[in-house]
Amino acid sequence: MGIFEGRRLVVATRNRGKMREFSRGLRGLAISLSSLHDFPHLPAIREDGASFLENARKKATLVAAYTKVPVLADDSGLEVDYLAGAPGVFSARFAGANATDEDNNKKLLRLLAGVPLGKRGARFRCALVLALPGEPPVTVESTVEGYIGTEPRGEGGFGYDPLFFLPEFNKSFSQLGPDLKNKISHRGKALAQMREYLLQLGWAN
Amino acid sequence: MGIFEGRRLVVATRNRGKMREFSRGLRGLAISLSSLHDFPHLPAIREDGASFLENARKKATLVAAYTKVPVLADDSGLEVDYLAGAPGVFSARFAGANATDEDNNKKLLRLLAGVPLGKRGARFRCALVLALPGEPPVTVESTVEGYIGTEPRGEGGFGYDPLFFLPEFNKSFSQLGPDLKNKISHRGKALAQMREYLLQLGWAN
Repeated sequence: MGIFEGRRLVVATRNRGKMREFSRGLRGLAISLSSLHDFPHLPAIREDGASFLENARKKATLVAAYTKVPVLADDSGLEVDYLAGAPGVFSARFAGANATDEDNNKKLLRLLAGVPLGKRGARFRCALVLALPGEPPVTVESTVEGYIGTEPRGEGGFGYDPLFFLPEFNKSFSQLGPDLKNKISHRGKALAQMREYLLQLGWAN
Repeated sequence: MGIFEGRRLVVATRNRGKMREFSRGLRGLAISLSSLHDFPHLPAIREDGASFLENARKKATLVAAYTKVPVLADDSGLEVDYLAGAPGVFSARFAGANATDEDNNKKLLRLLAGVPLGKRGARFRCALVLALPGEPPVTVESTVEGYIGTEPRGEGGFGYDPLFFLPEFNKSFSQLGPDLKNKISHRGKALAQMREYLLQLGWAN
């Protein structure tokens, strides 16, 4: 941990886009964040829960048991009304086990081809679980409502961000810029709540 | 109830297709079956659970509280792999709040247009819950694996039956005839288990 002697918090993800949002959402706290890239020997975790919360709880508790340090896990995804809530917990692998963000976005656009704007409602959901050694897990959930555009827009963010539009802004998550996105996004709002909790625990310094 | 003095069992459904399968699956027991058509003043039940089991449990317990007699509730639906498990708990209203079976089937076929057979895997799931006054609810779950055909086939059954094909038979549920369908279907297998339970309770006579 070098010169920095703050508390350590492992974020149970290998996704660089998520990791950027965690760093931003928790900045100012006296913590040193690690991702799962720092634990190359960690066994693979099957994210086979029926809900985001179930998956996040599983990741947090398994990684905490392995690393013996505090762990924050996220599980999140997109629910599309026209698809009866799909892709949901399968968001990251919608187009297959090794699907890229682009593969998933293309599949979603193809499925919604010709569907009018009024039927393209969708929401992002995020579940965060904090596992502290010897304590019951702390959970936070948040959502953001929007719609699926007819083509990708913008360069920022990751995942389905280029297709997820906010009616208030007429812009996709990718077009909002990280400050505005993290203020209103599912993950940003959940992280803000978790940040408050960590401040109450005295993690400000 | 007229001349028949057997036990009464309310089946918590208004769906005539399901009701036929319940009658068939439970025949030989000393019971008189009623559907919700016999309770026109029953308040509407919101089927807003995240799983079939949750919905079936809600229907069984609410209808039992209202009718004060034993209630058997079913919740069931179709999970399509290519759609990440959709329509799932939204199967009956996939194409909208007042969707007909035909509307739902057409929507499903449109979404899978051009998808190769190897990616059209699907399963029907059924959750049954029996609510007996003063007892904890009894639950049974069953599934059947198949695939979504490229056009509807057959006249029997209801719901997605004309599109749900069994690889072992190369026929849709609608083409199997009620005897074979109820032997291998999600609901038929769950009903067979529930029938055994009712026999153990002494409901044979």
